Amino acid sequence: MSTNLRILVDMDGVLADFEGHFLKRYQEKYPREPYINVADRHGFYLNEQYAKIKPELKDLVFSVYEEAGFFLDLPPIAGALETVKELDNMNDIDVFICTSPVQKYTHCVTEKFQWIDKYLGNDFVTRMVLTRDKTVVSGDLLIDDKPNITGAEKNPSWEHILFTTPPNSRIQSNPSPRRLNGWHDRDSLNRIIESKRKEKFVKIIECQN
Amino acid sequence: MSTNLRILVDMDGVLADFEGHFLKRYQEKYPREPYINVADRHGFYLNEQYAKIKPELKDLVFSVYEEAGFFLDLPPIAGALETVKELDNMNDIDVFICTSPVQKYTHCVTEKFQWIDKYLGNDFVTRMVLTRDKTVVSGDLLIDDKPNITGAEKNPSWEHILFTTPPNSRIQSNPSPRRLNGWHDRDSLNRIIESKRKEKFVKIIECQN
Ligand SMILES: [Mg+2]
Ligand SMILES: [Mg+2]
Repeated sequence: MSTNLRILVDMDGVLADFEGHFLKRYQEKYPREPYINVADRHGFYLNEQYAKIKPELKDLVFSVYEEAGFFLDLPPIAGALETVKELDNMNDIDVFICTSPVQKYTHCVTEKFQWIDKYLGNDFVTRMVLTRDKTVVSGDLLIDDKPNITGAEKNPSWEHILFTTPPNSRIQSNPSPRRLNGWHDRDSLNRIIESKRKEKFVKIIECQN
Repeated sequence: MSTNLRILVDMDGVLADFEGHFLKRYQEKYPREPYINVADRHGFYLNEQYAKIKPELKDLVFSVYEEAGFFLDLPPIAGALETVKELDNMNDIDVFICTSPVQKYTHCVTEKFQWIDKYLGNDFVTRMVLTRDKTVVSGDLLIDDKPNITGAEKNPSWEHILFTTPPNSRIQSNPSPRRLNGWHDRDSLNRIIESKRKEKFVKIIECQN
């Protein structure tokens, strides 16, 4: 076990404003089609909610984020870059970026690397993990806006912290994960980190005995 | 803990013939420059051995594998695809592809996804982990041709199995990892898997008590 706290941070919806940028590009591309305001989004997958308006919208949704440049152009979420750098500068914390490419990965994977390079620098590029299964990545915390994160590992080492966004704000699961209501929600973040430090300390002491 | 054995398999040097293809492309690009036969390669990094011949060769080495198409064109290593599919078909084994992009990641990352898609299919794409730090990926085995694999996690969950290639064949480390001398070395592979099954079984029994 490493003594540093390892915090895995998701990209889309946590560092990068996927939902806001999607709506902007969708409206530019399809100005005559119905759209859903970000505040009215619910459920994790955009295409599913759009398909309920009319089935043909599903393919339009894909066409927006499968386009070259979409992932590179995502604007950072308020407070994300500052907080992530600040956490990473702490002596006992390592931040890793943990992100899943979309099914049509052609532009997405390279642009995710470029985005991190551009906004957080090459040091963070060396701490990027691209995977569709986050359960096989080990860490103390995973800050992610996806409500249910499952995969090959049934007991992931991390505690999932649900990063609140409009699509997941009304979701209640049982047991419900602890939440971070945006990067400005510094009290929650500090409380979460402090609790993990204590847990880790107890584990290290146990290992030494 | 999951009951399945998770085997992480590296790409370059293990699934894909990086060294052989490098030499071919290098000789095509720079027919007048000195070169190193694969059998005479030693040390993990190509550029370091080439730089010893003359320092200018270092940049020529980079130019070969940073070129568009290089990673997509890598030929599969003998026996790799068949064995990986066969392992993955076993009831109690999950194979994940665990690979590090090169520093200039622009073509490399997308082409690694395309390569897996082409040779192993989309199901394996969903089990790809791209990371420069493999210590934060959890698994039972990591089959990798790199002699020393270090990172943020000081005690990775996997046992490193050194996949023998000319550059690492003479390396002796202490403690020395178990080796797999190519995919035809089925006896070693079976022995390694069997030992991990037993270890896992013991751990599961311990957890239940
Ligand atoms: Mg997300
Ligand atoms: Mg390798």
